[in-house]
Amino acid sequence: MAKFIKNRSKKTGNAPGSLVFIGNKKIEKPQISVINYSKDFFEEKQVENINESFENAQPDKVSWINVYGLHDIDLLTDLSKQFNLHPLVQEDILNTDQRPKFEADEENITYYLKMIFYDVETKSIGIEQVSIIQGTHYIITLQERLAKVFEPLRERIRNKSGRIRELGPDYLSYAIIDILIDNYLEVIEKIGNDIEIIGNKVLTNPTNKDIEDIYKLKIELNYFRKAVRPVREMISQMIIADTKHITNKTIKYLKDLNDLALQVNETTELYSNLITDHLNLYNANISNRGNEIMKVLTVFAAIFIPLTFLAGVYGTNFKYLPELDFKYSYLIFWVISISLGGGLFIYFKRKGWF
Amino acid sequence: MAKFIKNRSKKTGNAPGSLVFIGNKKIEKPQISVINYSKDFFEEKQVENINESFENAQPDKVSWINVYGLHDIDLLTDLSKQFNLHPLVQEDILNTDQRPKFEADEENITYYLKMIFYDVETKSIGIEQVSIIQGTHYIITLQERLAKVFEPLRERIRNKSGRIRELGPDYLSYAIIDILIDNYLEVIEKIGNDIEIIGNKVLTNPTNKDIEDIYKLKIELNYFRKAVRPVREMISQMIIADTKHITNKTIKYLKDLNDLALQVNETTELYSNLITDHLNLYNANISNRGNEIMKVLTVFAAIFIPLTFLAGVYGTNFKYLPELDFKYSYLIFWVISISLGGGLFIYFKRKGWF
Amino acid sequence: MAKFIKNRSKKTGNAPGSLVFIGNKKIEKPQISVINYSKDFFEEKQVENINESFENAQPDKVSWINVYGLHDIDLLTDLSKQFNLHPLVQEDILNTDQRPKFEADEENITYYLKMIFYDVETKSIGIEQVSIIQGTHYIITLQERLAKVFEPLRERIRNKSGRIRELGPDYLSYAIIDILIDNYLEVIEKIGNDIEIIGNKVLTNPTNKDIEDIYKLKIELNYFRKAVRPVREMISQMIIADTKHITNKTIKYLKDLNDLALQVNETTELYSNLITDHLNLYNANISNRGNEIMKVLTVFAAIFIPLTFLAGVYGTNFKYLPELDFKYSYLIFWVISISLGGGLFIYFKRKGWF
Amino acid sequence: MAKFIKNRSKKTGNAPGSLVFIGNKKIEKPQISVINYSKDFFEEKQVENINESFENAQPDKVSWINVYGLHDIDLLTDLSKQFNLHPLVQEDILNTDQRPKFEADEENITYYLKMIFYDVETKSIGIEQVSIIQGTHYIITLQERLAKVFEPLRERIRNKSGRIRELGPDYLSYAIIDILIDNYLEVIEKIGNDIEIIGNKVLTNPTNKDIEDIYKLKIELNYFRKAVRPVREMISQMIIADTKHITNKTIKYLKDLNDLALQVNETTELYSNLITDHLNLYNANISNRGNEIMKVLTVFAAIFIPLTFLAGVYGTNFKYLPELDFKYSYLIFWVISISLGGGLFIYFKRKGWF
Amino acid sequence: MAKFIKNRSKKTGNAPGSLVFIGNKKIEKPQISVINYSKDFFEEKQVENINESFENAQPDKVSWINVYGLHDIDLLTDLSKQFNLHPLVQEDILNTDQRPKFEADEENITYYLKMIFYDVETKSIGIEQVSIIQGTHYIITLQERLAKVFEPLRERIRNKSGRIRELGPDYLSYAIIDILIDNYLEVIEKIGNDIEIIGNKVLTNPTNKDIEDIYKLKIELNYFRKAVRPVREMISQMIIADTKHITNKTIKYLKDLNDLALQVNETTELYSNLITDHLNLYNANISNRGNEIMKVLTVFAAIFIPLTFLAGVYGTNFKYLPELDFKYSYLIFWVISISLGGGLFIYFKRKGWF
Repeated sequence: MAKFIKNRSKKTGNAPGSLVFIGNKKIEKPQISVINYSKDFFEEKQVENINESFENAQPDKVSWINVYGLHDIDLLTDLSKQFNLHPLVQEDILNTDQRPKFEADEENITYYLKMIFYDVETKSIGIEQVSIIQGTHYIITLQERLAKVFEPLRERIRNKSGRIRELGPDYLSYAIIDILIDNYLEVIEKIGNDIEIIGNKVLTNPTNKDIEDIYKLKIELNYFRKAVRPVREMISQMIIADTKHITNKTIKYLKDLNDLALQVNETTELYSNLITDHLNLYNANISNRGNEIMKVLTVFAAIFIPLTFLAGVYGTNFKYLPELDFKYSYLIFWVISISLGGGLFIYFKRKGWF
Repeated sequence: MAKFIKNRSKKTGNAPGSLVFIGNKKIEKPQISVINYSKDFFEEKQVENINESFENAQPDKVSWINVYGLHDIDLLTDLSKQFNLHPLVQEDILNTDQRPKFEADEENITYYLKMIFYDVETKSIGIEQVSIIQGTHYIITLQERLAKVFEPLRERIRNKSGRIRELGPDYLSYAIIDILIDNYLEVIEKIGNDIEIIGNKVLTNPTNKDIEDIYKLKIELNYFRKAVRPVREMISQMIIADTKHITNKTIKYLKDLNDLALQVNETTELYSNLITDHLNLYNANISNRGNEIMKVLTVFAAIFIPLTFLAGVYGTNFKYLPELDFKYSYLIFWVISISLGGGLFIYFKRKGWF
Repeated sequence: MAKFIKNRSKKTGNAPGSLVFIGNKKIEKPQISVINYSKDFFEEKQVENINESFENAQPDKVSWINVYGLHDIDLLTDLSKQFNLHPLVQEDILNTDQRPKFEADEENITYYLKMIFYDVETKSIGIEQVSIIQGTHYIITLQERLAKVFEPLRERIRNKSGRIRELGPDYLSYAIIDILIDNYLEVIEKIGNDIEIIGNKVLTNPTNKDIEDIYKLKIELNYFRKAVRPVREMISQMIIADTKHITNKTIKYLKDLNDLALQVNETTELYSNLITDHLNLYNANISNRGNEIMKVLTVFAAIFIPLTFLAGVYGTNFKYLPELDFKYSYLIFWVISISLGGGLFIYFKRKGWF
Repeated sequence: MAKFIKNRSKKTGNAPGSLVFIGNKKIEKPQISVINYSKDFFEEKQVENINESFENAQPDKVSWINVYGLHDIDLLTDLSKQFNLHPLVQEDILNTDQRPKFEADEENITYYLKMIFYDVETKSIGIEQVSIIQGTHYIITLQERLAKVFEPLRERIRNKSGRIRELGPDYLSYAIIDILIDNYLEVIEKIGNDIEIIGNKVLTNPTNKDIEDIYKLKIELNYFRKAVRPVREMISQMIIADTKHITNKTIKYLKDLNDLALQVNETTELYSNLITDHLNLYNANISNRGNEIMKVLTVFAAIFIPLTFLAGVYGTNFKYLPELDFKYSYLIFWVISISLGGGLFIYFKRKGWF
Repeated sequence: MAKFIKNRSKKTGNAPGSLVFIGNKKIEKPQISVINYSKDFFEEKQVENINESFENAQPDKVSWINVYGLHDIDLLTDLSKQFNLHPLVQEDILNTDQRPKFEADEENITYYLKMIFYDVETKSIGIEQVSIIQGTHYIITLQERLAKVFEPLRERIRNKSGRIRELGPDYLSYAIIDILIDNYLEVIEKIGNDIEIIGNKVLTNPTNKDIEDIYKLKIELNYFRKAVRPVREMISQMIIADTKHITNKTIKYLKDLNDLALQVNETTELYSNLITDHLNLYNANISNRGNEIMKVLTVFAAIFIPLTFLAGVYGTNFKYLPELDFKYSYLIFWVISISLGGGLFIYFKRKGWF
């Protein structure tokens, strides 16, 4: 199955805006949790039905509705009716192969982003889509499956820590995106660590396994880059976007995010280049080892092949072969053999061949 | 025959706008089908003659005239008279090597795009030109040969599914382009799949056949990219174009298309890089195998060449060679040979040579 | 002699605008031909002297003066006086190493372009400069030597085919540039064809000759690119240029030219990449063949070197060597030799070494 | 530990603007020094407590407060209260992995830059963050640890040398950044020197150690580039920034800095390319040496293997082998052996194999 | 010593605008020559002291003061006083590692450019800085040492050839820059020539010396590019600069310079790519030769190793070895040996191995 693109065969030829879930079902039943808060109000609950979640969603509070599990199309339809989501927005939420972007209209602004998991054991990356719909007084986050990555943020809301309880939904969106980008920095740090470890191995004692690991990491890094690189552009456009959904106060924070996103991209490029360096180094090492092997062969062959010839000469059965009868011939033969062999041995040694 | 450019020798020196079909005739006789629809009206027919197709093409309906087969220049001339096509538009329709673009004038907007077929068996790509002429109340699509790719769209029109029956010809154009880009995504998914399969082979047990397949896919991917990359730029320009042919309502859909086209391009680049990685991996593997072969050679030579010399020594016919007469010489000879050979064997084994 | 830059030593230190012909004299005596036409008038003649060519050059007609041969500086001086050419324009016309560009002033617009010849036999490219001076009612074309490439255009003027007789000198300029770009497309098609032929050879049975041909084509392609790549930029600037010399009607045609020039550049890049692929493929093939050779060596050495040792053992003259006296020793020796050799043979065979 | 990104695990999930020191503690207790100056006033002191440093910080003087050691968060909190620093500014100061940038608000402009140390012995780079907060009449510089790099600047203030005593805090900021960029130029000069030294070794007599050094320098250069490349962009933006913190007089100096920063970047690229060249040269050398080794092997094998066969022939025990009985056979055998061996020797010599 | 950056250690920490000569002293005592001219006036003299040169520098004439030798800081101070040079201008003139640029203020415009010498013998480039200060009625040129490159220009002033005597100092500046760029074109032509000569050698019979020459030229080309590439950008900015120092008349000439500078850059890139091609070709050749060597080895080994075994067989001392007694055994042995050896010989020949 193609890694860099998700299966779209269910989709082709459908009307634009038709709701087809592109991805793998990762949770049995969608789970919905709701937080309603204002400066002085706080309420948190798990609901069974999406309609229950709308109860306290009132203009004087911020409602954060979080949904785990995307494959239940009815749920999305209910959400869309309640919050007036454009058909294309609904379609994009279900297409988990969506490129990171945001889309604003009169009523909502929707962010499509990725959450990334790096498994150090298998050195492989997992990517989940996170969609964030932000309206005048609510935020809806939709994730493919249960993930605890936003828990610290909920904790901050519960504890009134920082400014979050005093500010509106656009600051909450920002805080969520901030967590996601911090997540990218953590992932790239882990991948980078693995790349540097392999780099050291390649410098000292490379094996075939290492080259496979390098290629694996190269592909995972490309996969990571695909999910993360557009984020910077998305934030830049948020900063200059002329939309009521993003307030001036938040823009200063977005600029900071922009720097982080830039750092993610630059670090990704640095590690991408480092991998290429490792590969070149590995190749140079292979050639070097080829030469080492050939030197061993050459030393053995160069020393013993002439000597074998010499032995062969005195193994001939020529009637008239005067040396054979001389008493010290055998001794001289050994002296010559050892001198010749030893001489070549020293010659190659001096040449630095071993 | 050059793959990346079609034969133009018929053309050079002709007046601009002169009608010469550049391409291969792929269908015997052009086939013409017509759909006329409005919210409450629907009519579908096959016509023999292009002039019949104009009958119900009235301002209150959308007329979709589809032509398979481009080589009949009279047909195009009739079309041009009816819908006032600029000579350069006519020329571009016939030049099936046209770069994807759109061209708008007072009366019509014309899109030139490609439909792409990927044959998994031969791992080769086929490219057909699709021209779409959109006027105030009609769409004319011109294809090189019979292809059923727009059938789901016709089905949606027949069934009034989605919004298509309520909207004008610019939405129909959009829907057609949407199908084509979905088609690109499907093709790149198939190619990507083949690239990844070969990549696994290269990692485990590469053969000469694989390198040929990799190169074949690399060339096909370039061929695909040539046909598809300009589409994104074309859609971007459609979004900012100041033309009455594209309504504001459609622009939101075009932005979505823009994302898809971007995804096509990014995925193409990713697979292009992956192929390059495969090639480098293959080369590293070849060098590695060269070393393996040389190790085999060296082990055999290093063990047996000195022993052969030793045997040669005792095969000499020196009169005075004391060891020969000693009873246990032969035994000792074997002991020495096996020790020496076995010692080297263990040495190379420990060095990890096999 | 440097291929990518023409000898300028005659020039350094001269005053700007001083007339020095940079290039090789390719024709003995300049040849001048004149066509005067309007919708209802047509006249064609060869003239001996440049001054004769001005006779019918009147505002109500288009005068096309064509000069073959650039080295006659007097001729250029006469032209310059008649049509008020700026000294820098005169200098640029004579510098046949001029980068493609256009230059507009009050009275004239001058285009500097290249005509390209590809010799399939020698796989080499020839480049000639074509300068086009366009005034209010005249066109002067200057070429380095006789070439029949504009003949179809003259034929169209003679036959009133197309719109050319009804339109002004800017359309004539366009028609000339159109022929040149068609010429580029033809050349890149031929080069591309040669590149693909060599590519097939490299895949099947590459020789040293092929690598030389590939490098030759690579250099020629660079040479071609140098002459052709700036043309697209030049046409883009013509489209947006605010000059009375280019009428609105012609701009539509220029946009079409722009597409063609873009196609030339894209195809050039594609073939440039294809050549690089061929080189990499060739290198992979060399390494592969190195491995094949080494396998042959290793098979022979691994099979026969141990056997030679064995034969050597029984060639020793040890007094006490019991096997020698055993009747079936020789038979057993052969059995062992063939088993051992055959065993290794089968082993290497199974490993896929031959 | 990942080299190209600092450990952020302490940080993820925290509220934006929360103060966490990212980096290694490099000094035990922060050291604070203060310089207050105007045209006619000068005062310099070490203070124990940050609050003491505010004493003479009055609008008619420039106050330069320098802090070594960043990990004391209370100190930063005091500074922030006094000078009204935005929470994000505080956070960025503590994140020593900050990308070079500047950030301006109503009250302050803050620059984040790097100081770079190159250890010629270990060929490794050390990077420290320098933050510069500039207000209406004060400059605060914050460094990770004690460094004497600004000493010449203090000396100039003490001695009234140059214009510094007459100008405001923006000139002081400029002077500090100027010293940092001069520092980059010095570092790149040292790295460049090391790269060129290794380059000469690679040309003459490369060893495995050299390839490791090259790779080390390549990584360090990337590390340097990451810290330095954004500086140019930062200065360009300072020049066009519309902020009261940068006066017109200073802009001329900034343009000069811009040139220096550009030179840093261009020189970095040049050395980066040079390293790549060295690697390619090294690889070509390895292959060359492989060929040299193989030539030695081939010469020995080609000369002595046929001769050994010849000796073997006359070592056979065929009853009827007429040459054996001929008196001069042994002599002729040697003549043939020496001729054959010598002939091959001369042949290979002429081929230039040794 | 680092090639791509000049020693700056004298400089770091100095006040901006402080006068430190960065470079090597190339002339003992500065030499000063003056030309004063107007349409009807001409005067040329050598002066001992810079102050003498100001005598006839009056608004109705153009004064061209040329100084060879930069290390005399007093001279520069005098110049600066007379013509009101900004401290940064003075600093930049002395920094001979200055990037090409121009700097305009109220009174002067200063150009910093390079003069380049190519020594065909050593294939090395020398770079000297040329600073041109242009005021309302004077030009001051400062060079590192005596060079006759502007002599043809002086000759044109003396002889009133061209328009130079009628035009102002901006035209003189242009004429000087024109000479420098012509100088670049000459140098790149010479380097290109050397590159192409080596390219031919690499195709036919490459040696180790060639690879060193290629790398040398690659480095020199980078060195050349560093000095020359920014010139194009500088001229582009001069064309659009809004400064009274550049008149409209001169802009047309600058556009021509722009084309030349573009040609310098494009040709540099072309030769840079050509060198890379040569290196790849060289590497392919090395691998090819490796294969050739291995073929020689394999042919010898494959033919004679089996034969040696065969001889060994009949050299064994088995009591019962029936062939030995057969009269034609020896003859048959030779027949077999020659058939086997010859057969392999023909086999390898047919395979095209030699």
